[in-house]
Amino acid sequence: MTEPLQTGAVIGILGGGQLGRMLSVAASRLGFRSHIYEPAANPPAGQVADRVTTAPYEDADALRAFAESVDVITYEFENIPTDALDLLESLRPIRPNRRALAVSQDRLLEKDFLTGLGLNCAPYAAVTSQADLTAALTRIGTPAILKTTRLGYDGKGQARIRSLADAPAAFAAMQGAAAVLEGFVDFSHEVSVIAARGLDGSVAAFDPGENVHKDGILSTTTVPARLSAGQRSDAVLIAARILNALDYVGVMGVELFVTPAGLIVNEIAPRVHNSGHWTQQGCAVDQFEQHIRAVAGWALGDGSRYADVVMENLIGDDVDRIPQIARERGASIHLYGKAEARPGRKMGHVNRIVTRG
Amino acid sequence: MTEPLQTGAVIGILGGGQLGRMLSVAASRLGFRSHIYEPAANPPAGQVADRVTTAPYEDADALRAFAESVDVITYEFENIPTDALDLLESLRPIRPNRRALAVSQDRLLEKDFLTGLGLNCAPYAAVTSQADLTAALTRIGTPAILKTTRLGYDGKGQARIRSLADAPAAFAAMQGAAAVLEGFVDFSHEVSVIAARGLDGSVAAFDPGENVHKDGILSTTTVPARLSAGQRSDAVLIAARILNALDYVGVMGVELFVTPAGLIVNEIAPRVHNSGHWTQQGCAVDQFEQHIRAVAGWALGDGSRYADVVMENLIGDDVDRIPQIARERGASIHLYGKAEARPGRKMGHVNRIVTRG
Repeated sequence: MTEPLQTGAVIGILGGGQLGRMLSVAASRLGFRSHIYEPAANPPAGQVADRVTTAPYEDADALRAFAESVDVITYEFENIPTDALDLLESLRPIRPNRRALAVSQDRLLEKDFLTGLGLNCAPYAAVTSQADLTAALTRIGTPAILKTTRLGYDGKGQARIRSLADAPAAFAAMQGAAAVLEGFVDFSHEVSVIAARGLDGSVAAFDPGENVHKDGILSTTTVPARLSAGQRSDAVLIAARILNALDYVGVMGVELFVTPAGLIVNEIAPRVHNSGHWTQQGCAVDQFEQHIRAVAGWALGDGSRYADVVMENLIGDDVDRIPQIARERGASIHLYGKAEARPGRKMGHVNRIVTRG
Repeated sequence: MTEPLQTGAVIGILGGGQLGRMLSVAASRLGFRSHIYEPAANPPAGQVADRVTTAPYEDADALRAFAESVDVITYEFENIPTDALDLLESLRPIRPNRRALAVSQDRLLEKDFLTGLGLNCAPYAAVTSQADLTAALTRIGTPAILKTTRLGYDGKGQARIRSLADAPAAFAAMQGAAAVLEGFVDFSHEVSVIAARGLDGSVAAFDPGENVHKDGILSTTTVPARLSAGQRSDAVLIAARILNALDYVGVMGVELFVTPAGLIVNEIAPRVHNSGHWTQQGCAVDQFEQHIRAVAGWALGDGSRYADVVMENLIGDDVDRIPQIARERGASIHLYGKAEARPGRKMGHVNRIVTRG
């Protein structure tokens, strides 16, 4: 499929969380239907999607029926089992492509890929044994952080190493999984670039946002970010280099550390990204629609920023503040329809438009 | 029900067209689920709603099951059969209320109501016989327009009378239905106010938009409208007077003619309104969310305008221009997921953000 999808076409989305939910709504704005594939029952995206398949990623029949009912397949998360991808890809195009998934599923591959492009990352080393870890700590120093190479998300599967004495416990915490040691970077703040690449190879980037994390989870994103004109342009060029190298189609989130010596790539996510939610209020075309446009083979849209925005995540019982937030001036509320507000669970977000002048 | 609805509550929506579709999406943003009731199969709103009931308004069992599955009932159109409303209202609150529906379902009642509030309407007279029509034309003069009192929409059920000689044909065109003769108003342009009233009686109005019709169907709405400060304030006060008089809960569209002698009320619609679609790009809280907030008992949101916008309806084969529109700067596309582009059919709209400075 290289022709643009027409009204009524079906976008298949792997994953039924809040990202799938907002992708689904964006697809509907362009006249598309969405079909969600999600193992868990009653996913947030199911409330707004045209169709939902509830089945595990090991169910070949369900995967086949899903693929045959859609025109293109995309996803809201990167840890999709390989066998499922093999089957799906034999039936319909998957966008972004498998290489983007492979690279971002594995921290070590990702860092090798990024440094191979000449981009700067934190110092790192592969760790598969206690001896590896000791050698790596000797080279990289402390403090450092040991992370499993796969399935990391919101601070899980990670162990901080403040001094050499922490090494055995950190290694044990990996529970035998392949890991990567990362040195700390002395950065002033973190920004992210949400960038998109179309089927025709055109690239567009949203204005970088400045991120603040709390307990390992994104708390706020502010646009504009504190960046010099040169840094802003570097940030966009870094993202473009990554997208082009992967022959990428869709939206990608690229997290960057801002240091006196330049921008350091922290990690990439081959999907719409929490730090891009501000685009829903600040741009004519938001990150969700931009992603749908790309995977549907449409022209990328105008993502230029026309308002200053602060996005705040509503985590766990933050949602209890909704009655107050609903009365604020300039606040746009986005709730995900999740029934239970567990600690650490992303329940929604607020985009606050910062009035000018 | 006077307490605000909580996340997970279900908004019942009568009518599954594009207004129901956009109401449904707005409900999801606030964490609500939506349930659409629509006689026609495969309604546009069904693609984004949590549930759809496909049944006629004469099906008491289906109406009852629908009402019992929702927390509050609202609607996207005003011509809902009375028996259906009686049944639904016995089970769940209907917002806006029955009086608003009764008044806006009947052009004669509407004009009597509006003039009773001291508001200015075009000269009018009830017409149930040829003799009525002759007498009314003598008093009001020509040109004039004869309209059925009920079920008028987008120029249907109307006959223009240029001179007395047109009267018999116009009367015949009413096919025996009760009608109302309206004199022409010498206006420079039409504006509309999209206003909301909450369960607590608070009133908020969006900035008036300026409307241009083509072939009896809204073509564009532009904000800001050409209005003096005094006219702008009059427009909002007129809307507030109407909402308060009806003890209204929800969003209403009020169409006004701008004349040298002041504003003349053309008609009211007890629902979200095509001329309010620009709010999706121009405001933190759009008309659809404002309506859902009101019927859910929430505080009204901030509908202040932070961008200049031109909304263009995409009628019939206007949608063939989508590939070009998708490449425009500042254009936000909203398609309704309708399969067939028939002439006169509203297929979608574009909100164009007018860049400042």
